[in-house]
Amino acid sequence: MKNHAHKLDIELQNNPAYVRRQSDSMDISSGNNDVSNFVTKDDFLVTSTLILDAKYGRNMDFRKEHVKSYLFYNKWHQRALLYFSLFVNLTLGIFEKPAVPNFELPVWATMFIEVLCLLFFIFRIIHTAHVEKMENLWLDRKYILVVIIILLTILDMFGYIIWIVIAPGTNAVRWSRPLRPFLCVNFPEGRQVRQAFRNIRRSMPEVVNIFILFTLTLCLFSLLALKLYSSKNLYFPDGTPYFQYYMDAIWQLYVLVTTANNPDVMMPAYDYSNWWALFFVAVIIVLLYTFMSIVLAAIYNSYRDNLKKEVKNVIYTKRRKLTEAFEILQEKNDDHYVIKKPCWMELMKYVVPKRSDKQHELLLHVLDEDNKSCVKKTQFLYLADLLLLPLTEVKDRMTLLEKHLPGLYNSRVSCILKTIVKHRFFRWFFDSLIFINAWIIGFGIKDADWFFLSIFFLEILFKLYTFGGFKFFKQFWNIFDFFVVNGALILTTYNYMENEVKNDSYVLDLFLVMRVLRLFRTFASIKRFRVVIMTIVSIAPSISTYGAVLLVFYYFYAIIGMEIFHGLIRFHGYNMTFTELNNYSFCGNAKLKDSNFYYDHYCSNNFNDILKSFVILFELTVVNQWHVLTSGFVLVTHPAARLYFLTFHICCVVVVLNIFTAFILEAFVLEYTLSKESKLESVLERTLKQFGTGVTENSDKSVASDDNESDVEIIPDKFSSVKGLQFHVKKRNQKTMHVMLQEMFEKEIEIETF
Amino acid sequence: MKNHAHKLDIELQNNPAYVRRQSDSMDISSGNNDVSNFVTKDDFLVTSTLILDAKYGRNMDFRKEHVKSYLFYNKWHQRALLYFSLFVNLTLGIFEKPAVPNFELPVWATMFIEVLCLLFFIFRIIHTAHVEKMENLWLDRKYILVVIIILLTILDMFGYIIWIVIAPGTNAVRWSRPLRPFLCVNFPEGRQVRQAFRNIRRSMPEVVNIFILFTLTLCLFSLLALKLYSSKNLYFPDGTPYFQYYMDAIWQLYVLVTTANNPDVMMPAYDYSNWWALFFVAVIIVLLYTFMSIVLAAIYNSYRDNLKKEVKNVIYTKRRKLTEAFEILQEKNDDHYVIKKPCWMELMKYVVPKRSDKQHELLLHVLDEDNKSCVKKTQFLYLADLLLLPLTEVKDRMTLLEKHLPGLYNSRVSCILKTIVKHRFFRWFFDSLIFINAWIIGFGIKDADWFFLSIFFLEILFKLYTFGGFKFFKQFWNIFDFFVVNGALILTTYNYMENEVKNDSYVLDLFLVMRVLRLFRTFASIKRFRVVIMTIVSIAPSISTYGAVLLVFYYFYAIIGMEIFHGLIRFHGYNMTFTELNNYSFCGNAKLKDSNFYYDHYCSNNFNDILKSFVILFELTVVNQWHVLTSGFVLVTHPAARLYFLTFHICCVVVVLNIFTAFILEAFVLEYTLSKESKLESVLERTLKQFGTGVTENSDKSVASDDNESDVEIIPDKFSSVKGLQFHVKKRNQKTMHVMLQEMFEKEIEIETF
Repeated sequence: MKNHAHKLDIELQNNPAYVRRQSDSMDISSGNNDVSNFVTKDDFLVTSTLILDAKYGRNMDFRKEHVKSYLFYNKWHQRALLYFSLFVNLTLGIFEKPAVPNFELPVWATMFIEVLCLLFFIFRIIHTAHVEKMENLWLDRKYILVVIIILLTILDMFGYIIWIVIAPGTNAVRWSRPLRPFLCVNFPEGRQVRQAFRNIRRSMPEVVNIFILFTLTLCLFSLLALKLYSSKNLYFPDGTPYFQYYMDAIWQLYVLVTTANNPDVMMPAYDYSNWWALFFVAVIIVLLYTFMSIVLAAIYNSYRDNLKKEVKNVIYTKRRKLTEAFEILQEKNDDHYVIKKPCWMELMKYVVPKRSDKQHELLLHVLDEDNKSCVKKTQFLYLADLLLLPLTEVKDRMTLLEKHLPGLYNSRVSCILKTIVKHRFFRWFFDSLIFINAWIIGFGIKDADWFFLSIFFLEILFKLYTFGGFKFFKQFWNIFDFFVVNGALILTTYNYMENEVKNDSYVLDLFLVMRVLRLFRTFASIKRFRVVIMTIVSIAPSISTYGAVLLVFYYFYAIIGMEIFHGLIRFHGYNMTFTELNNYSFCGNAKLKDSNFYYDHYCSNNFNDILKSFVILFELTVVNQWHVLTSGFVLVTHPAARLYFLTFHICCVVVVLNIFTAFILEAFVLEYTLSKESKLESVLERTLKQFGTGVTENSDKSVASDDNESDVEIIPDKFSSVKGLQFHVKKRNQKTMHVMLQEMFEKEIEIETF
Repeated sequence: MKNHAHKLDIELQNNPAYVRRQSDSMDISSGNNDVSNFVTKDDFLVTSTLILDAKYGRNMDFRKEHVKSYLFYNKWHQRALLYFSLFVNLTLGIFEKPAVPNFELPVWATMFIEVLCLLFFIFRIIHTAHVEKMENLWLDRKYILVVIIILLTILDMFGYIIWIVIAPGTNAVRWSRPLRPFLCVNFPEGRQVRQAFRNIRRSMPEVVNIFILFTLTLCLFSLLALKLYSSKNLYFPDGTPYFQYYMDAIWQLYVLVTTANNPDVMMPAYDYSNWWALFFVAVIIVLLYTFMSIVLAAIYNSYRDNLKKEVKNVIYTKRRKLTEAFEILQEKNDDHYVIKKPCWMELMKYVVPKRSDKQHELLLHVLDEDNKSCVKKTQFLYLADLLLLPLTEVKDRMTLLEKHLPGLYNSRVSCILKTIVKHRFFRWFFDSLIFINAWIIGFGIKDADWFFLSIFFLEILFKLYTFGGFKFFKQFWNIFDFFVVNGALILTTYNYMENEVKNDSYVLDLFLVMRVLRLFRTFASIKRFRVVIMTIVSIAPSISTYGAVLLVFYYFYAIIGMEIFHGLIRFHGYNMTFTELNNYSFCGNAKLKDSNFYYDHYCSNNFNDILKSFVILFELTVVNQWHVLTSGFVLVTHPAARLYFLTFHICCVVVVLNIFTAFILEAFVLEYTLSKESKLESVLERTLKQFGTGVTENSDKSVASDDNESDVEIIPDKFSSVKGLQFHVKKRNQKTMHVMLQEMFEKEIEIETF
């Protein structure tokens, strides 16, 4: 029993601090009269930290002797500071040269900010080294990468300073800047994004094989095209020769596989002889429809495999932490090791200090299978999930008015009002109003806006009055409504105060957006769409992970792109006189004369600042016309610039977007499978339902506007002592992917192995 | 026992033909001395037909009394005639006005051919009505559709004739022509394609929901765009107004979702204010990346569900047929119903008349679990699969030379040669030669071609000599090699004979293609690619099903397109003088002046004949620039023409291509899962392996060039009587999807339910 505590005993026997701490714990224990004397305050600190780690899914293997340092490490302000520094470090891209217009800061200022960020990163890494076990630290790829990036950045900064001191006026390059986003990935806090990267890395071997085969086939088709068409002396409409050089042929056919130059690349040959269409059809069928589908299939396949592994890993970590915690506190009871009630009550004060004793007792009852006032290990492993369930006392659920003005709130008029608001006709009335509003906005009648705004505002007020803020803001569509209507109200008022409607004010545009966004609410009132929308909403948090992955790539390529292409293409407008054209030439670069790039008015698509770079990279991600964008930058630099665009296409479109599609596929199939098997419950949910006899379904449909969205509330009334408490178990389709996956695989992992 | 035969007895007692038939069967049975007298020749015909139906997967529920008619119905020439008429009926599109240049036939000729086809279809339908049970016929959607299409076609033809008689010179329309391809789908023989259509139909309900939501969101975004940009008076580069009309805004944003006008549609707003990029990014993220991914996911999900249903259905049908067959012939033996050996031997003469008695006996032994010379029902259900396994006698496997010139073939020199050819160095030598050939073709050295051609020809000869034609032509790459090398040889010789190399002869081009195609063989010699290639090869047959589905849609839209757009756009070349431009104007239509359609040289993309229509529909399927193609046809007709292109896009791209992707995904995941679980065998394979002690793996690697491709040959030597026979069980990755799927689900269906 208490192996760990014993080890601590031996290690710290002669440490005066230990004696003091032990006596502290003695004080507490004597205050509670029944906590075992063997358990020190440090033990409680360690166990509570382990439990909280399990609850929040942290997997750092901290040193037990540095538990206080670890607690500080996990404090919200420390993490907030880290996120803030990472964010500031990234936003430097806006202020550094080439900066967004009007945002440029001098070099010393950005360097100073960067140094501050770096100092915090170094502090954080040292802190990590202090709390995490050393052997983990040197094996863990993420820490090594962080250290390398920091070292490279310092090296780069010194090099840069020396450069501008020695040779002022020349163009010094801060080459470490593209590495910045990888810091976000490799700090332990970027777990989700790192997982996505790991997914990508693991599916690479198979994809690479297919891609090599694809490249070889592409080269052969290009050779074929070259042999067939080079002798025919054909030309593209813009006068460039048709399949005359091998590298050019490969490029053209690769662009064809991305569909971006279809059917243009075929037209000269097709005009020459109609049968040549067959060649291009063959290329598209073989390379696009077959190979690219198989790339997606390979990625999807390995994604599914990895997903299972990752989720199981998370569950393993959680259980390992809880097992560790249990083994520190366990006491022998008959044949089993258990945690007894006094110890439990003390532990809970560390884990959830804000909850009352009554709530602690309830938690114990839930995990206490045999009613012996103690928790067995198998039950203890559910603690992390149990702690994640919101547990509120019934009095919490009263609205503010009910609490403070019960007389008024429960008066007859008020009751009639509440009945009206709760009635479904109330909902139908406002739904139909929104439809009318839609027509009025569509026909551009602006005078009715005040009427609709005030009526929707009233609706929100009534609902708030009836259901109270807590219930009201639990529903997605209510929150949406609240922000849109209030936003519109504020903007309209602002507009009215300004009195004159400026035609080009951003406020007016925003106000228009708000007006139209209100209409989206209508979709939620149509039942058949609600399933689709809720699927999208529940997938959304995980989608953002892939957004972050894309952002990492975007930042990396944006910085590189700015270094290479900055200032070469500029937007000067298109309606120019002849002299203006001579001054600014074409997109500010004479080489673009007669190019498709200029003809298509793409001058704004350039790398002149980081935001513009993001936009052009997004356009490249969407694929269409990417070859025209590329051709512009090739014209102003060198054909090798194609490599930049090619690698970006492969990274972001072929790999990341396919992983994203794989994710959506799996998420949808999962959602669909699980929503059918409504009986699939987590172990904990089943236990809770057996436990609480008073299970109520939240059925205020007028607020929920959907019975699917309502929670199951479990009011435990088995023990009179804990009356007035409620667990809120979320319904299936309000859970995120992440939680659902864990519940799915939970049963596959044997508890007994721990 | 023999309920059916009894029923026949009663029905046909007084029929003189029956007596004759029975006496026939008596003759046979007395000849064999031991066939039960109760089983008539008709019974054997019925059972053998049922068994063959099960073997070939036919699911028609024929009338037992018309079994001879049904046998005639299934004769190869009848089916060939049907396929031929369907094919001719479709190819009429080439000869009818607007015909492919030089292929036009007069109206009376095409009408005459069509009438011939129709007559055969009518005959076939009447024949079906004769052999299939009536109650099925009127419930079966496919027959009703065929009849309706035939009736409509006849109506149309009469209408057309009347029209051209009454009003000659006016433009009569043959409006039933788009229905032609649906005949192919709805005749029972188009089972695979019909299944694909059923898949599409079944996944529609869910997709439609998502699509309606998508459309509503699109309309809202368009409204937003209209409100935001219509007041700013912006213009596209070609001068068209920017988001001024609602329908136009919807169209622009729909095209944006297909990515075809990205980033062009954004540029005017982006140039106006950089922040407007956010609006278009939001549209793309919400409508393209979220909604379109979810459409794919929904289709994939329902595809997986349907696939299982379909496959189980096929297995059910097979077992139902076999059960029926068994119940006609069954005799009581102890407690079980069985089929005894004499009856079996007689039955096999009907089922596989070309096989020898020895082979019939072997089949009995395989299915005979308890060595009692009889087959139980559970075993009988495997008969269809067993019949599909190739069964050859060992002497078949000798090469022709071995048979006819054994002295020469087994001489010392010949043996050394054979050892060399079988050695892996032989393969490596030729693989490296191909690589050298690749370089030489790449650098355009033509003189070495004779050398390489002759050496590759020699390789084929040596391999043929060593392994014999049977083994040689069993391998995909050998067949490929054989055709490419011989094709190149013939073409080169032809070229040499002609003596003068015409620069634009198709022969020379074909010859070039052949030269380069030879290089594809190198890929097969690299092991890591072989898995990918074999996956593609094994998926290929099923891919063609979706090709057929696309073809149905293509034909339908091509005919309609020709009726609407025929002759409006013509290709006259682009390098014209001013007078020529005046004569031919732009693509033969003055309305296309200054259009992107003309500027991009798209004049060849028109609906002037059916082949050109197919090409433009393929271009539309690839999506890129589809809005420019549409804009051309809108300019020469009316904005409503967009509907044609829009519905085509939704049918072919959103639905069919997504189903196709779903299919590839599932096929790949399946292939991958099954190739890992190498132990997954069909029930039959296990039985066979237990049965035959002499299992040899075909290990002639030099021929197979891959051990994965080799078959397992089962030489049954448990019974000396059947020595010299071999079953060829295909290895996993040579099986088609279809077969694998059946084996997968076979175990899930309980045999006992039959």
